[in-house]
Amino acid sequence: MDRKKILIIGAGRSATSLIQYLLLACKSNPWFISILDKNMELAKQKLGNNLHGEVVNFDINAEADKIKKYDLVISMLPPQHHITVAQACVQNGKTLLTASYSSPQIQALHQVAIEKKSLILMECGLDPGIDHMSALQMIDEIKSKGGKIKSFKSYCGGLVAPESDTNKWGYKISWNPRNVVLAGQGGVSKYLENNKLKYLNYNRLFTKTDTISIPAIGSFEGYPNRDSLGFKDLYQLTDCETFVRGTLRKAGFCEAWHALVLIGLTDDSFYIENCKNYPQKEIIERFITEAELKNKFSKSVLEKINELDLFSDTLLPFERATPAMILQFIIENKWKMADNDQDMVVLYHEIGYEIGKDFFTKKAILCLKGETNGETAMSKTVGLPLGIAAKLILTNKINLTGVHLPITKEIYEPILAELAKNKIKLKEI
Amino acid sequence: MDRKKILIIGAGRSATSLIQYLLLACKSNPWFISILDKNMELAKQKLGNNLHGEVVNFDINAEADKIKKYDLVISMLPPQHHITVAQACVQNGKTLLTASYSSPQIQALHQVAIEKKSLILMECGLDPGIDHMSALQMIDEIKSKGGKIKSFKSYCGGLVAPESDTNKWGYKISWNPRNVVLAGQGGVSKYLENNKLKYLNYNRLFTKTDTISIPAIGSFEGYPNRDSLGFKDLYQLTDCETFVRGTLRKAGFCEAWHALVLIGLTDDSFYIENCKNYPQKEIIERFITEAELKNKFSKSVLEKINELDLFSDTLLPFERATPAMILQFIIENKWKMADNDQDMVVLYHEIGYEIGKDFFTKKAILCLKGETNGETAMSKTVGLPLGIAAKLILTNKINLTGVHLPITKEIYEPILAELAKNKIKLKEI
Repeated sequence: MDRKKILIIGAGRSATSLIQYLLLACKSNPWFISILDKNMELAKQKLGNNLHGEVVNFDINAEADKIKKYDLVISMLPPQHHITVAQACVQNGKTLLTASYSSPQIQALHQVAIEKKSLILMECGLDPGIDHMSALQMIDEIKSKGGKIKSFKSYCGGLVAPESDTNKWGYKISWNPRNVVLAGQGGVSKYLENNKLKYLNYNRLFTKTDTISIPAIGSFEGYPNRDSLGFKDLYQLTDCETFVRGTLRKAGFCEAWHALVLIGLTDDSFYIENCKNYPQKEIIERFITEAELKNKFSKSVLEKINELDLFSDTLLPFERATPAMILQFIIENKWKMADNDQDMVVLYHEIGYEIGKDFFTKKAILCLKGETNGETAMSKTVGLPLGIAAKLILTNKINLTGVHLPITKEIYEPILAELAKNKIKLKEI
Repeated sequence: MDRKKILIIGAGRSATSLIQYLLLACKSNPWFISILDKNMELAKQKLGNNLHGEVVNFDINAEADKIKKYDLVISMLPPQHHITVAQACVQNGKTLLTASYSSPQIQALHQVAIEKKSLILMECGLDPGIDHMSALQMIDEIKSKGGKIKSFKSYCGGLVAPESDTNKWGYKISWNPRNVVLAGQGGVSKYLENNKLKYLNYNRLFTKTDTISIPAIGSFEGYPNRDSLGFKDLYQLTDCETFVRGTLRKAGFCEAWHALVLIGLTDDSFYIENCKNYPQKEIIERFITEAELKNKFSKSVLEKINELDLFSDTLLPFERATPAMILQFIIENKWKMADNDQDMVVLYHEIGYEIGKDFFTKKAILCLKGETNGETAMSKTVGLPLGIAAKLILTNKINLTGVHLPITKEIYEPILAELAKNKIKLKEI
C-alpha cells in the first residue's frame, strides 16, 4: 500500500496540536509527515524523535513544484502566502488545508481545482473554522425543526484562563502577537442590526461593544470583526435581521485598547528610524506624555495602561520600527504566558429564531482551557480541525474537489464528531 | 522678438488670479498664454475674449512631448500628476512652476534639470509658498541682527471672511473640497516641541490644537500638518527647539471635525455600493444613528454636526461612493460660498529668538479677504506667487536651473516685493 505524504508548512505555536494529532494518526495509517519551517530547530523540536515524520527545508515560493511530492498540504503560513501554495496544489491535483480566511484570489481557483481534482479547504481552524461548523450545525438543526432564524451573533476569542489571569487587561498572548496589535485594521467592520447595515471603522471599533455574560465563566465584550455580511449569505440566513461575527475580549479590555489606538501606538503605517537602544520612554513620549495621558483617559483605562509600563527605560531592540512593532514588543513582554499558565478559547453563538408565532433563543458555548505542554487551547482548536480534516480526506470520508469552506454537512458533521471525541464541543447554555 | 509661450495646466478655482495676472502682463510683454483643462468651457470662461491667450486640448500623459512648444509651464494639477509634466519639462529644458509640495521623485530630477538647463520651482503658492517666503524673510532678518531662533510656529488656513461667516463651523469651501475632507490623512504629523520630537496620528490630530488669538480678527486653532521636521533643516534652523507648520481653523472647528473622523465619515478607504438614489439619512445611519450621536458628543460638537443635516432625505447622486465622497457632497452643499461671500486667507508666523540673554517674539500675519468676482483670497495667494515667479523668470530676474523651493533670497525677495504691490504682505502684530 502506498504511503500518503503530508506536508505541514509552518511549525509555530498553532501547529503543535496539529502535528501531534497527525503523528499519532500515523501509527495506525500508512502516512508520513514532512514539516517545513524556516526555523528548522523549531520544526525538529515539534517532531521530536518520532519516526513517522521528517523535517524538510525548501523555499515554498522559489520551489513550489516540490509540492508535487506530497498528497496533502497543510499551510500554517500567514494568509498572504497561501495563494502560492494553493496554485501549486491545484496545478498538481493536491489537497490544501488552511485555517485562514479565503480570498477572491483563492476563490478564483475553484473551477481549475475541480478539473485538476484538487481540494482547497479554507477556514478550517477555530475562527474561522469551528465557529462556522458549530454555527451551521445549530442552524441546520433549527431549520430542520421549521425554525426561521431572525438573529445570529457569534463571538470568539483566544484568551487566558481565569486561574492564569494575572493582569488588569484579562489578556495574555496565546497566538500571533502581531495580529493582536493589528486586530481590526483590515478595513471597516460591517454587520447587520435589525435589518440595518452598519459600518464601524477602526476609530470606533473598540468603543461599540456587545456585552456577553457567560454563567460561571465571566463577563466579556465582543466587537464586530471584518465584513460579517458575506457570511450571512454563505450560512443561507435570508430572513436574518441581525447578523454579526466578532471578536471576544474580557470586559474592560476594549475601552483601554481604544486608548492605545487613539494614542497612535497600533499604527503600522510609518517607521520610526534609528530607535535602537533608545529608552522606550523617549519614543512613547513622542506620542503622548504621562501628564497628557492622565488628563485624557478615565481611571479604569489608566489602570490598564499604567500596567503596560509604557514610560519604562527599557532599551528598544530595533533599528527601526513602526509604532505597532513597539507596542508588540511591549505586550509580548507584559502579556507573556508563564510556563504554568493556561490559555482559554471562548466561542459563543446566540441564535434567535421563530417557530410559528413563538420566539426562541439558543445560546451555545465552547470554553476550552489549554494544557501547559504546548498544547494550548488555541493550538488544539486551530490545529485539530485541520488534522481531522486531513484524516477524513486521506481515508476518503470527505470526497470533494474545488475550493470549499467547512459549511456543508458533508464536511462539518464528521469533523465536529471527531472534535467532540477530543473534548472540543459546544454546549448549550 | 520671439514670443514666449506659457502653458497653464488646470483652470480651476485657484487658477483665476494667476490667469488674470499673466494675461495683464501680456499687454506689456511679448508673451502668449495657452490654457489646458479637460473642461474646455471652464478654460474658455477664464480666458474670456482676451487675445493674448488660447484654450488648448491635449492629454498631458499621452502627449507630454507637446510641452516642447512652450517656454514655461505652470501646473495646477493635483500633486500626483506633476511628475509626468516635470519629466517632460526637464527633458526639453523647459521651466515648470507648481504650488504643490515637492516629492522625492521630483527632487530626483535635480541633476538632470541642471544639465538640461531646466528650472523646476515647487511649493510656490500660498501654503506651501508664501508661508516659506515670508518665513524665510523674517528668519533671515532675525539672523542678520544676530538673533538665534529657538522657536518657529507657522499656521495657514483658507477660511471665510467674518462678514460672510454664516455657519457654526466658521468655514466655507474656497478650495478643493476633496482636500478639505481628506486633510490630515497623508500620514502621521511630526513636529518638534521643546526639543522633543512629537508624532500626532489622524485619530488625535484634531484634538490637540494650538490656540491662536489674532487681535481684531478672531480666535483660531492650529493643528500640525504633515512632517514639519524636514522644513526645519530647509529653513536652516539648527538651534530651533520648537518647530511646527500647521493648518488654521476657526476656534471650535477641530473638535467637531474630530467627531466626523471618529464616526468614520472622512474614511476614503472603502466604497459603499449601490447608493444611488438612497436617502442620505439611510447611509449615515449605517455609521451612527441620531440617538447614538446625541449620547456620544458634547453640546458644542452637536450644534455643528446638526447643522450639517446628516440625517436628511436628500437622495445621493452616486452609484458608489466612499464615506469621504458622501461627506464631501454634504459639505459642498452646506459650506458653499454664496455669490457675495468673501473668503479669507490667514497666514500666521510666530518666531521666538534670543539675542544675547534677551528673548524676543516676533509675530506676523497675512489676513487677506477675497473679492466676489472669482478672485478669491485663495486664488490670489495661490496664483499670484506663480504668476510673479513666471514673470521674473521670463524677464531673466530669476536665473536658476535644477529643482528649487522659494526659500532663497534670490527667489523670495523679488516675489514678496511684487506680492506687496498687489496688497499681499504680512504685517507684524
